[in-house]
Amino acid sequence: MHKHISSVQNSQIKYVIKLSSTARERKKTGLFIIEGLREITLALTGNYEIETLFYCSEILNIEDRESLSEKLSATTQWIEVTSEVYGKIAYRATTEGIVAIAKTKELSLNALKISAKNPLILVAEAPEKPGNIGALLRTADAANVDAFIIANPKTDVFNANIIRSSVGCVFTIPIATGTTEEVIAFLKENNIAFYSAILQESVSYHTCDYTPPSAIVVGTEATGLSDIWRKESTKNISIPMQGAIDSMNVSVAAGIVIFEAKRQRGF
Amino acid sequence: MHKHISSVQNSQIKYVIKLSSTARERKKTGLFIIEGLREITLALTGNYEIETLFYCSEILNIEDRESLSEKLSATTQWIEVTSEVYGKIAYRATTEGIVAIAKTKELSLNALKISAKNPLILVAEAPEKPGNIGALLRTADAANVDAFIIANPKTDVFNANIIRSSVGCVFTIPIATGTTEEVIAFLKENNIAFYSAILQESVSYHTCDYTPPSAIVVGTEATGLSDIWRKESTKNISIPMQGAIDSMNVSVAAGIVIFEAKRQRGF
Repeated sequence: MHKHISSVQNSQIKYVIKLSSTARERKKTGLFIIEGLREITLALTGNYEIETLFYCSEILNIEDRESLSEKLSATTQWIEVTSEVYGKIAYRATTEGIVAIAKTKELSLNALKISAKNPLILVAEAPEKPGNIGALLRTADAANVDAFIIANPKTDVFNANIIRSSVGCVFTIPIATGTTEEVIAFLKENNIAFYSAILQESVSYHTCDYTPPSAIVVGTEATGLSDIWRKESTKNISIPMQGAIDSMNVSVAAGIVIFEAKRQRGF
Repeated sequence: MHKHISSVQNSQIKYVIKLSSTARERKKTGLFIIEGLREITLALTGNYEIETLFYCSEILNIEDRESLSEKLSATTQWIEVTSEVYGKIAYRATTEGIVAIAKTKELSLNALKISAKNPLILVAEAPEKPGNIGALLRTADAANVDAFIIANPKTDVFNANIIRSSVGCVFTIPIATGTTEEVIAFLKENNIAFYSAILQESVSYHTCDYTPPSAIVVGTEATGLSDIWRKESTKNISIPMQGAIDSMNVSVAAGIVIFEAKRQRGF
């Protein structure tokens, strides 16, 4: 039943490369690429649907293949590829041995269900660097936040660099995106207080009470948050900085505030 | 008085490239390369000695050059280079217009003076990725820790990638390096309690009292801390993680614990 591909010119292989590299193709088709056993397993845990799996039997061992098989639906197609072909489609060309085509999920705020009675949400406006988005997602996972919302997204979260830098956390937490105005409306409708990382007219982050339903909102390192947050926020918060430079990585700053909220909530 | 270089084959230009790229050359000569006006200014603030400045007058404006001049000692040599030459020695080839040869500082623990009565110190064992080291240094600066100590260093802190990713924070806080055994001895001699990020036999980080002299110790994401910390630490600490993956960026984890200490100390 397993198909076999040995040519790097094969059209399916070219298609995988196209999905990996262009956000527009992912948007058009509703498909994206996941590389690595751990990442694919996490995507299955997160109820992502896997359409096709490309594996290199010289790298992926048979036990891992079988244990993955058990988690898949019957319609998933397995395709064996040579190590040369695998090298073409994989970033970590010699270590994982498996790449999947999966279906993206609807990320609209309408599709986001907040079931927790007392939610804690992380919002990032217009984050750009995949490394920062990955670190934010890892923090969101570790804190088990109820959602990670991206306002005015600049980068497709199904980008390979984000999947990789998030070590798969992109699959484990509810994610939604929308315009900044939509996100603010969503938070208000759901009676979620929101605390925006803005220096002007701010209070120190540790003086706020995050035990009721709360969202922490962070902007980019270069430009901060857009003006509307300042007006609409429950409070503007800042982290007291006492160094020569007053500069902090955005994912570190988000981690500090989110875990202060967790501490107040007794973990 | 200003020298002028227009050939990329010039021996001084080749020397800059060598200092940029090889840690061994930096160690041998006690010299390193700093790129960028902000970074060079911070190095001067941190009492680093600048030996030579290479500038491209097409990029660096004259006001910036003059304001930098006022901060320099009379012995600093200025060398004007063409934009072609500048492109060879600079990472950000079109934006900064200035590169310096500076003297490294002694980083031994013996040279580290802790003058605070109640110090807070960040220790990282064997960090490797320049991006992580840069983020740790930014956090250390923002928290105004009394020292950043690297145990069993794997990477030269005068590496261009660390200077860049720390946005110059590498110059603003006292840094020392030593073997893990030396670092532990130093902390004990100075009566500094140390809390090591180790999962085994740990307490939650927020249950410790960091108001007395304290150090926070973090390892690498891949291998954690070496065994000796577990035995020697005042306490092993962990951040309660409730996600699917239990993975956090090391600089985020360090930020969370350091700022909990700052919070307890009333900032």
